[in-house]
Amino acid sequence: MLDYKLLSALAAVVEQGGFERAAQVLGLSQSAVSQRIKLLEARLGQPLLLRISPPQPTEVGRRLLNHVQQVRLLERNLHGQVPGLDSQALPERLRVALNADSLATWWAPAVEDFCASNDLLLELVVEDQAVGLKRMRAGDVAACVCAAEVPVSGARCEPLGAMRYLALASPQFMRRYFPDGFALAALPQVPAIVFGADDRLQHRYLEALGVTGGFVHHLCPSSEGFVQLALAGLGWGLVPALQAQEQLARGELVELLPGQHVDVPLYWHHWRQGGELLDSLTGHLLRATRSKLIPL
Amino acid sequence: MLDYKLLSALAAVVEQGGFERAAQVLGLSQSAVSQRIKLLEARLGQPLLLRISPPQPTEVGRRLLNHVQQVRLLERNLHGQVPGLDSQALPERLRVALNADSLATWWAPAVEDFCASNDLLLELVVEDQAVGLKRMRAGDVAACVCAAEVPVSGARCEPLGAMRYLALASPQFMRRYFPDGFALAALPQVPAIVFGADDRLQHRYLEALGVTGGFVHHLCPSSEGFVQLALAGLGWGLVPALQAQEQLARGELVELLPGQHVDVPLYWHHWRQGGELLDSLTGHLLRATRSKLIPL
Repeated sequence: MLDYKLLSALAAVVEQGGFERAAQVLGLSQSAVSQRIKLLEARLGQPLLLRISPPQPTEVGRRLLNHVQQVRLLERNLHGQVPGLDSQALPERLRVALNADSLATWWAPAVEDFCASNDLLLELVVEDQAVGLKRMRAGDVAACVCAAEVPVSGARCEPLGAMRYLALASPQFMRRYFPDGFALAALPQVPAIVFGADDRLQHRYLEALGVTGGFVHHLCPSSEGFVQLALAGLGWGLVPALQAQEQLARGELVELLPGQHVDVPLYWHHWRQGGELLDSLTGHLLRATRSKLIPL
Repeated sequence: MLDYKLLSALAAVVEQGGFERAAQVLGLSQSAVSQRIKLLEARLGQPLLLRISPPQPTEVGRRLLNHVQQVRLLERNLHGQVPGLDSQALPERLRVALNADSLATWWAPAVEDFCASNDLLLELVVEDQAVGLKRMRAGDVAACVCAAEVPVSGARCEPLGAMRYLALASPQFMRRYFPDGFALAALPQVPAIVFGADDRLQHRYLEALGVTGGFVHHLCPSSEGFVQLALAGLGWGLVPALQAQEQLARGELVELLPGQHVDVPLYWHHWRQGGELLDSLTGHLLRATRSKLIPL
């Protein structure tokens, strides 16, 4: 077995953002916390923590941390089954990777009740829907929301539904770049907004309309920034319908081509051995997303 | 001098997201584009491009790319001064690092007019206000919005103003965790939301109120996700006043302690040799932020 006294010291320093606070939480001296981490590093023969402010785990440190969090989840089940075990005062923490657009729309309302009633803290990692699964494979998160439908080894994968994206721009943008009405042929020369190098939504939209080749675009790796750029009239881009409801209703954003959209399926990946809490979160999410996402 | 034919090939592959599109834009064959990049890599003795889909620059490739973009900005000035020079068909691209909260609030309205009238495309890089300057130092961006007031060597730094942050939560959250009214002593045991390990705002808020030590928190590295978590009642957190105006007016978010806030100064860092366009964007930003940010 691993030495969980040492691992807990590592986890506390990262979670509390410093040695002093970790020592307070663990009821140890700062030098004892520091000694435990040095010992763990000596045993593993590599650094686990960057001593900056606040301390950051190395890649291996991050994997150990995730392991500690998963072990805590398993222990939590045990506490439910074996009364009398010492129960920890700190709430549990679950590390989940998800795409920025889910986080900007359906995620928080879907998990709020569950987190409050289970005393669960979230550590969210924002990843493009196409790449979040890498985090699962690396053992870096306990669960992930992404577009891949094949589970990684040891994990389960459940369909949540599809996010619908609409191609939107501000009325002012349409007047500036399409004074004589929308013209598909001119679209590649008009500034688009692209989330990042992994974001192919604008490409897919254009390809579905038979437009191939490059197109001019701003790059904006932020879900909220993306909508802000569109609202300010800097470009057109594919925005989740869920995120633009109010702006569409108020006429602050309009569809380039009404009826033309791109649907992106989303799946929930979670470790099989993630414990009851993760299983129960899974059941909760499947119910909560039913009214938000389009059935697959 | 560097060989700009080779550098342009590298820039086109990254900016267009592939060899095929780069070849179209440059009017070359795909194999010619590929040959140019291989030649550049051979001369520099290291890889400049990861051949994944879409291709990604290595760290050195990224620096070369930024250099090409800066050279293009300088050329652009020259075109204004020397009529008859061949002008490029593609609009210019400027790489700017900024903090997520600026991008979620004042940035887009402040630059929209400027980008449209100067035919300028933005490549935005989201960095915490405390770390954006590293990108300047690495030569990775042409400008940056961050909290540091000391310019890096070769750059200028101008104060933009301060962002005001309010400690907010949903009324439902307040009822759930503070049924008998807000109590400062209980705040560390009630879930907060923290943007990431670099985000000390919640710590600063608590310290200003005399509360030290750890506090339970969710981690959510997304500006929009942060507000969504607060709106859904998952936690309390420091939100830019600019971002929460509507939610405060509608009573969807309330202040924990009215009158208690944290101000974060923001500075605009830009290369001295960035050319007229960058200078003129600087002047534009200083005017545009005057009504949005609090004077320093």
